[in-house]
Amino acid sequence: MTMSPISLDDVYAALAELRARRPLVHNITNYVAMTVSANVLLALGASPAMVHALEEVEDFVAISDALAVNIGTLSPPWVAAMHSAVAKANALGKPWVLDPVGCGATPYRTKAAAELAALRPAVIRGNASEILSLAGETGSAGKGVDSTAKADDAVNAATALAKRTGAVVAVTGAVDYVCDGETQVAIETGHALMPLSTALGCSLSAVTAAFTAVRPPREAAVAALAVFGAAGAAAAQNLRGPGHLPAEICDALHRMDRATLARHAKLGS
Amino acid sequence: MTMSPISLDDVYAALAELRARRPLVHNITNYVAMTVSANVLLALGASPAMVHALEEVEDFVAISDALAVNIGTLSPPWVAAMHSAVAKANALGKPWVLDPVGCGATPYRTKAAAELAALRPAVIRGNASEILSLAGETGSAGKGVDSTAKADDAVNAATALAKRTGAVVAVTGAVDYVCDGETQVAIETGHALMPLSTALGCSLSAVTAAFTAVRPPREAAVAALAVFGAAGAAAAQNLRGPGHLPAEICDALHRMDRATLARHAKLGS
Amino acid sequence: MTMSPISLDDVYAALAELRARRPLVHNITNYVAMTVSANVLLALGASPAMVHALEEVEDFVAISDALAVNIGTLSPPWVAAMHSAVAKANALGKPWVLDPVGCGATPYRTKAAAELAALRPAVIRGNASEILSLAGETGSAGKGVDSTAKADDAVNAATALAKRTGAVVAVTGAVDYVCDGETQVAIETGHALMPLSTALGCSLSAVTAAFTAVRPPREAAVAALAVFGAAGAAAAQNLRGPGHLPAEICDALHRMDRATLARHAKLGS
Repeated sequence: MTMSPISLDDVYAALAELRARRPLVHNITNYVAMTVSANVLLALGASPAMVHALEEVEDFVAISDALAVNIGTLSPPWVAAMHSAVAKANALGKPWVLDPVGCGATPYRTKAAAELAALRPAVIRGNASEILSLAGETGSAGKGVDSTAKADDAVNAATALAKRTGAVVAVTGAVDYVCDGETQVAIETGHALMPLSTALGCSLSAVTAAFTAVRPPREAAVAALAVFGAAGAAAAQNLRGPGHLPAEICDALHRMDRATLARHAKLGS
Repeated sequence: MTMSPISLDDVYAALAELRARRPLVHNITNYVAMTVSANVLLALGASPAMVHALEEVEDFVAISDALAVNIGTLSPPWVAAMHSAVAKANALGKPWVLDPVGCGATPYRTKAAAELAALRPAVIRGNASEILSLAGETGSAGKGVDSTAKADDAVNAATALAKRTGAVVAVTGAVDYVCDGETQVAIETGHALMPLSTALGCSLSAVTAAFTAVRPPREAAVAALAVFGAAGAAAAQNLRGPGHLPAEICDALHRMDRATLARHAKLGS
Repeated sequence: MTMSPISLDDVYAALAELRARRPLVHNITNYVAMTVSANVLLALGASPAMVHALEEVEDFVAISDALAVNIGTLSPPWVAAMHSAVAKANALGKPWVLDPVGCGATPYRTKAAAELAALRPAVIRGNASEILSLAGETGSAGKGVDSTAKADDAVNAATALAKRTGAVVAVTGAVDYVCDGETQVAIETGHALMPLSTALGCSLSAVTAAFTAVRPPREAAVAALAVFGAAGAAAAQNLRGPGHLPAEICDALHRMDRATLARHAKLGS
């Protein structure tokens, strides 16, 4: 199978369509990432909502354009809501994205991530340790929710995970990779300060969900990584530390144009 | 019935009294808005607390000066705590404010908002879609938690809702309106970037609660909208996007003076 | 018993070791403080995780270097998880820190704090009202979660609490004190804007937990208060209000060096 290459022009066209359509993104995400993710989605041009009660997640999926599921601060009532929302999304043919935060850190977390990964997410987005763990590689646990492996080392695992689940798998690090089981796209972008600001990976997963509302999974994942990484790189230019990074990323997303995207993101394979 | 007009001098006097008395504001609010709301209340001059356990909400209401109830990320245990806190506030004659976030988006949310609205809040503060839905207008659902209607279109609904519930109803948008069933006050203030930063509406509801500790509901709502909107307008002057807006609003609230208020807020009818 | 004095050189050596070892800090903390605490820990040089489900807290304690327990937005499931995590930490000999947020405000909160304080925390960190209440002084309740007493007035209570619990007790205010039942260290640092930004005290407790991974409790508490206070003082230099304080504190922690520490913190007794 030959996949057409994705260019930065394709990415920018996806962003333009996202801004025009302003998709409603339903998030069932962790407490740490909620505020940052909402602001990132607003700055990107999407309409975010954080909704987790079992009593309303199905109804909310029905009015949403995409769903982001993130297990960062999971507990049994939230996992139940995730399953209910995912079932509804699948029934309605709406795309959803899985962020398996901290997969590998505890058996409870690893099991929750594996069960969700089997439910046909459009995209799975994680760091190298999480993707290695979710793909079943032993001894791959990170440091809590932080990765101890490089994205480069997880590309084979990501490809295997993509084949097994049918999801496009995005593994992020110094270089990001989008794997669909057949092909891989490398995205060179971002900034070294980004891992020092919490919830940016989680926000990136939410951004990926927003792009799945306007593009197929592989193109959505590439667009999300390129646009968010370019925003991070642009944002970091004037910083003296990680403190203002989330706010600056929002400004950079709000102002993102074709030239800034080209300056800060490079697609390869 | 003739209501005395409210001037910006009245608003500023209310702010001065709030700062002098530093009311304790009990918040049962959503996860997304907690940190922003706490910082906004501190910058305004109030003392915030976020307390939601059924085991302590009544005791906390008893030591508080006002209560803010926000259904943004509701679930059954939280709704139970809201009802318990509201009953205690009513029993003690303490004012409380309702923010019906996302009312109209799902039946669960709409029912929760309607039940709380019937429990004599001092003020109901929402966007146009939420107020239209809460007033019973059909087909008024917004886009998740974002409004798809203009505040101007919700003034009649706000007036009807005020008459039915006895609450003062504040509907916010490009122009804000405070309706008490008989009169209306229009507040021209704020900035177009504000809807692109999450939890600012929720924070405004918390600010309204703080003002109900020092003024009757109608004057409290007008003061809250004028002061918070002026802070937003002042804050937005130096921004390149929405990222730093919450921090800048806190600075603007902390430094708010009579001249800044007059420069950025206008009261009409 | 004679305790060796702690110098700023000792504090800076502790920070250097923390940065080199990058301890994994398990937080069971309140919703308001999660994001700020995570960012503060990352900027300091630690690896934070927020994990609260009863199903995984023991497993997470087992891979962590220290535990921070904060009752700010407590509820029964969270208190159960706190007890489970603390029991595991004690069984494994891992240090943990208690932040008794709002102790004294309600009976539920006071009881939860007292029960946790009896479980051998390495350090208890609170404001004056909280420490006075936890030490059993009546009529000491603060204003919700804000203190109405001065740290100076709580030194005797902190000493008594340290003797009773075996914990080092850190009471923070305009001047901070670290009491171990025999000795006391005064730390002069920080800035008057800090109480106007939410979750900074909670973040300081998380920082204290990070230092307990590399130093004994008394030295860890002194190091945490000195480093965090110096970051606050350095951060406040360019501010026009409290809005940007958390971000600026993260930048200051990220850049903290020996000279900045000396300029902004002073140890006494």
